[in-house]
Amino acid sequence: MLKAQYQVRGPVPQDVIEAVELQLPAPAAGEVRVKVQAAPINPSDVLTLTGEYGMLPPLPAIGGNEGVGRVEELGAEVSHLKVGQLVLLPVGCGTWVSHLNAPASKLIPLPEADPQQLAMMTVNPPTASLLLSQFVDLQPGDWVIQNAANSGVGSYLVQLAKLRGFKTINVVRRESAVAGVEAEGGDVVLVDGPDLAKRVRAATGGADVRLGIDAVGGAATDHLAACLCEGGVLVNYGMMSRQPCQVSAASFVFRDVTLKGFWLAKWFRQATQAEQMRVFGELTQLIASGKLRARVAATYDVSEIKQAVAAAASGERDGKILIVPK
Amino acid sequence: MLKAQYQVRGPVPQDVIEAVELQLPAPAAGEVRVKVQAAPINPSDVLTLTGEYGMLPPLPAIGGNEGVGRVEELGAEVSHLKVGQLVLLPVGCGTWVSHLNAPASKLIPLPEADPQQLAMMTVNPPTASLLLSQFVDLQPGDWVIQNAANSGVGSYLVQLAKLRGFKTINVVRRESAVAGVEAEGGDVVLVDGPDLAKRVRAATGGADVRLGIDAVGGAATDHLAACLCEGGVLVNYGMMSRQPCQVSAASFVFRDVTLKGFWLAKWFRQATQAEQMRVFGELTQLIASGKLRARVAATYDVSEIKQAVAAAASGERDGKILIVPK
Repeated sequence: MLKAQYQVRGPVPQDVIEAVELQLPAPAAGEVRVKVQAAPINPSDVLTLTGEYGMLPPLPAIGGNEGVGRVEELGAEVSHLKVGQLVLLPVGCGTWVSHLNAPASKLIPLPEADPQQLAMMTVNPPTASLLLSQFVDLQPGDWVIQNAANSGVGSYLVQLAKLRGFKTINVVRRESAVAGVEAEGGDVVLVDGPDLAKRVRAATGGADVRLGIDAVGGAATDHLAACLCEGGVLVNYGMMSRQPCQVSAASFVFRDVTLKGFWLAKWFRQATQAEQMRVFGELTQLIASGKLRARVAATYDVSEIKQAVAAAASGERDGKILIVPK
Repeated sequence: MLKAQYQVRGPVPQDVIEAVELQLPAPAAGEVRVKVQAAPINPSDVLTLTGEYGMLPPLPAIGGNEGVGRVEELGAEVSHLKVGQLVLLPVGCGTWVSHLNAPASKLIPLPEADPQQLAMMTVNPPTASLLLSQFVDLQPGDWVIQNAANSGVGSYLVQLAKLRGFKTINVVRRESAVAGVEAEGGDVVLVDGPDLAKRVRAATGGADVRLGIDAVGGAATDHLAACLCEGGVLVNYGMMSRQPCQVSAASFVFRDVTLKGFWLAKWFRQATQAEQMRVFGELTQLIASGKLRARVAATYDVSEIKQAVAAAASGERDGKILIVPK
């Protein structure tokens, strides 16, 4: 049994994380032993390793915030889970491990479907869903613009927008990423640049764009702001460029653009149980039925955690990096 | 008679503006001849000369957006104004002139008070007043932070905040500007820097700061954002650094800061007549009674318009630049 652990945080994430032997006792009463099936490496996981994230666990810590596993062994007094059941792991429990013991009450039984797709359910899909619903009251036929369109959230956002009848303008940072986003159903896909607004107007026939979604920061934020109509809202949820968001005063002052942030962790704290169930109920169904999916760039065993984190931290991949324990 | 006119826009504002002879017919029926007493050069006037402002008049144009004059001659059918009456000039009429003819109905009679102070009434004081009231429901005792605190708006904001019982943290870009802002009643005055948030916490005892006001842009915006409490609102109304506003994604995402813009021209278009009268009624009274005033750095004749504009465009002055026709 293995776990991917870090004792310190540092600027090169693959340098601080390492695979070490995991000793697990037999599951206690009320617990089950779970064999992890798949656990993704999200950008927020990388920022947690570098110490740049908004919430940092005490050290030493095990990496990974979401994933799915299969019940392997039942402790005493567990009746509602069976060996072999696919389950969603508790958020933030340290999922880059081959096995874990968890209270049965914290494990959500899942329908039998692709474990790799289900493993990515807790972080990126609700982010995409809420970015589309929490800031602007979009109607079918409305346009939304996003950058990092080939990211995990970006890909879910294209698919969810299509299901809801919205049209997407998708911005990527390199030509080689265009085809993938087009294949996923992006209505317009453009490579970022200072003349983005002009190309967006040409591609949409000058349609009003009221919602912009930024995961990049730096000048890329400003390029999106310039594409929004008067009174538009720009929402930032990431910092892939590692630079502060830039927006010209002209966009704020003369065109009344508002810049806001979105953090899923805060939504989890504030949303009611009913609201959370509504969001995850819809997403589970879409993912289990194959209507919503993410590309997987590569999978790695826990023993290969350094290569896996290095791959996830690189900007040049095409799809998510998953830990799939042997 | 002279007017300060420009035929083109360009990056060096004093290069495009020039004083030329003004020919005025006798005032027509319903018009009066006004001798201009004072007209300020605001940052927005400089941006209009460079072409960076959000609203640009057709060329050729006369500079200046606000000012006061004294009625010198009455056309036919003018009954409610007398020769010698001090009047507020219509906004945007081109006030950097020695004389102008204007419809009597567009001239607002003013109480007999310092014309230089009254001349600065239309642009900066309502901006300061509305920045304090339109975004966050501040209560007496609450803190607000602003940069460019030694600017015209900044100075009015310090005074209005004090009248309303708010406490101000004032950020300036150079040590030599500190004493002037302290003299005006700023509660805390600090020179900008990357550690601003830490010094603000020390100066306020860690008080919540819910409203930030930015006229600078660039990294200065980010420094203010870092001073705000969770859920705080940062309002930009200027671009003195000529750089785009920068705000770290961490401020937006982890601390839920919102960045908005304020443009007085838009407020003029949208506010009701009653709302405008309420705002200007209060300001006229405060200025005429000497409770609200701005420092004047220097005054220039229309013939000295190039020196005047160069002085206004410089960041190193201490107070407003006024055109005071001989």
